[in-house]
Amino acid sequence: MAIIDTFRFTDAEYESRLARTREAMEKAGVDVLITSDPSNMAWLTGYDGWSFYVHQAVIIGPTGEPVWFGREQDAQGALRTTYMAEADIICYPDYFVQSNERHPMDYLAAKLTERAWHTGRIGVEMDNYWFSARGYRALSDGLANELVDITGLVNWLRGIKSPAELDRMRKAARIVERMHARIADKVEPGMRKCDLVADIYDAALRYDEEWGYGGDYPAIVPLLPSGTDAAAPHLTWDDKPMKTGEGTFFEIAGCFRRYHCPLSRTIFLGKPTQQFLDAEKAVLEGMEMGLEAARAGNTCEDIANAFFDVLRKWGITKNNRTGYPIGLSYPPDWGERTCSLRPGDTTVLQPGMTFHFMTGLWLDDFGFEITESIAITDGAPECLADVPRKLIVKD
Amino acid sequence: MAIIDTFRFTDAEYESRLARTREAMEKAGVDVLITSDPSNMAWLTGYDGWSFYVHQAVIIGPTGEPVWFGREQDAQGALRTTYMAEADIICYPDYFVQSNERHPMDYLAAKLTERAWHTGRIGVEMDNYWFSARGYRALSDGLANELVDITGLVNWLRGIKSPAELDRMRKAARIVERMHARIADKVEPGMRKCDLVADIYDAALRYDEEWGYGGDYPAIVPLLPSGTDAAAPHLTWDDKPMKTGEGTFFEIAGCFRRYHCPLSRTIFLGKPTQQFLDAEKAVLEGMEMGLEAARAGNTCEDIANAFFDVLRKWGITKNNRTGYPIGLSYPPDWGERTCSLRPGDTTVLQPGMTFHFMTGLWLDDFGFEITESIAITDGAPECLADVPRKLIVKD
Repeated sequence: MAIIDTFRFTDAEYESRLARTREAMEKAGVDVLITSDPSNMAWLTGYDGWSFYVHQAVIIGPTGEPVWFGREQDAQGALRTTYMAEADIICYPDYFVQSNERHPMDYLAAKLTERAWHTGRIGVEMDNYWFSARGYRALSDGLANELVDITGLVNWLRGIKSPAELDRMRKAARIVERMHARIADKVEPGMRKCDLVADIYDAALRYDEEWGYGGDYPAIVPLLPSGTDAAAPHLTWDDKPMKTGEGTFFEIAGCFRRYHCPLSRTIFLGKPTQQFLDAEKAVLEGMEMGLEAARAGNTCEDIANAFFDVLRKWGITKNNRTGYPIGLSYPPDWGERTCSLRPGDTTVLQPGMTFHFMTGLWLDDFGFEITESIAITDGAPECLADVPRKLIVKD
Repeated sequence: MAIIDTFRFTDAEYESRLARTREAMEKAGVDVLITSDPSNMAWLTGYDGWSFYVHQAVIIGPTGEPVWFGREQDAQGALRTTYMAEADIICYPDYFVQSNERHPMDYLAAKLTERAWHTGRIGVEMDNYWFSARGYRALSDGLANELVDITGLVNWLRGIKSPAELDRMRKAARIVERMHARIADKVEPGMRKCDLVADIYDAALRYDEEWGYGGDYPAIVPLLPSGTDAAAPHLTWDDKPMKTGEGTFFEIAGCFRRYHCPLSRTIFLGKPTQQFLDAEKAVLEGMEMGLEAARAGNTCEDIANAFFDVLRKWGITKNNRTGYPIGLSYPPDWGERTCSLRPGDTTVLQPGMTFHFMTGLWLDDFGFEITESIAITDGAPECLADVPRKLIVKD
């Protein structure tokens, strides 16, 4: 159907994604794949909508078109945003929603049985926000065969971006550039954080006549803790004024039609302390080395080790990963949850892979983030956005 | 600790919540409760932060203080936003994050065993976004006893709001009033939807000098489909211009320190069709009857039946629930996922309960939403926000 085509890719692109998924299913020995991750659902079919707070899935059987499964009222969204025909949409009545007596996966088990898709090896995403332990049990009880864990199977296929996907991420990069420019322009002592966030959303969303597009919602809200609170990486904001003598990191992303370009910068109001100046030097030098290692044929851990080596030289311990793959995402995470840039991850880098090189430091009494989103190419990595790579000081 | 006190309630309030939780645990025959729902975690301890994309939980053992469990880097957030001491914080090393070899619940099982909390009946939220099927299996494998499903146990306790919670919801109501006023002021044919959403966020967030506060992020982004697309309830927005001759519903919420006041209105640009005028009459008449039934001692289904009876008189079928409890929430849902306003739900209404009376219609070729958020009192329900209850026409 696809009445709404704003968010969609070409039919050929969806066909290729489906073919690659079926190959991976065969390799994993899976006859039927059930994916509940909204990013996977969107990647496979174009499905878009804020309906992931109820149980839903895209199901790929041994043959034929994918099937959309969800709440009755959301079938209208599926018909509008995907290429699917009404016959390929299974929806459960509303009294299954958030019920203590009935589970949508009971319903799905019955429907799979009707299609004779219940006897093969059925893959489900066992470590995903959108497929619960009770859902697993309900589906398991309702089907003849044991379920197989295929967490990440589709996520891994999403890792290498097509040219059309890279185009969206570059458009998102223009947005995040605008967001950081706005922050640098507006932030000053006394400005309330909630007002600054209003400005950040404004820069994230407004239509630009020259670009010919506006923004979508990022999968994570702005994170902008200040001073010693910036030791905690995941605080959002409050309505208190910004203060002189404090550093604040801004972890934000531009988003264009669900594709993300995350990017962080740190701003110091007043004269920066030596702590911040040292962190800047260490992180920038480490990033140079990490970017140098971000080449096809190298591995995820090569980037991480190159970065961590420099930090160690500066006496800084960062005991968390330094990046993750990015692209199409829905809340709560703009990462793809497959590989990570950390020691021990030997995933080989290939052209078209995209990462948030997350070089943030969260130390005892301050936080510091200068990051880049990159695409792996045949040569040096492409930094998707162009935002001055430095500690921003407003005195 | 609680270095940041912006979001916190009094110690007495947290003590009372903990005591009520222990009572409910005893009733459910549970010795240890593990809650992964960020709204439950916040309600019990004050914990706040966008860290729910990794595994985390609050654990209540048979005696003593609650325990916070999460990623190492997020311990800083726990120390800052909760009343908890460092000794009550268990955090797992970063190499457990999104790993294919290790699961944070392996780590938790070992830690519970160290505390000798592994032999009793251990309750987990089996139908919750934040506790996966693989997490269930890892925890199950690592503990001596079978896990008990306590989905919703804490959510149900959140149902009746304290005066301090109602105060936050009333503050959120001022915000949603401002958001709807802004929409009505700004919307016009040719305005791009993404620009309108920028205005909606601006009205949702900015500090108001008279109120003395600004806004927080709502758990759901604005939903504002137009024309026939409004038949789908959960579409977000694009960057296309608003059109004359189309109706658009605006499903939004004000949010103050994680407490929500959702409220929807519909705007028609141009001369509204008879379809919209009829929907307005039916919904407003039905809402009057529903609000009349929203009294302590009545049940959830009484409200729904009163509303549906009027719709039937107008020949309108709404085959989905007409509301849900609201309050403290994190994405992906501002509902509490306990009772629902629908036939068959005999939950008794009590003073202090709060609901989004979700009277939206999503029909074949259009959508229509005029809703209210209400608090149950000793008398007539309190409509939290005061937004003109009518179809808004801009000609």
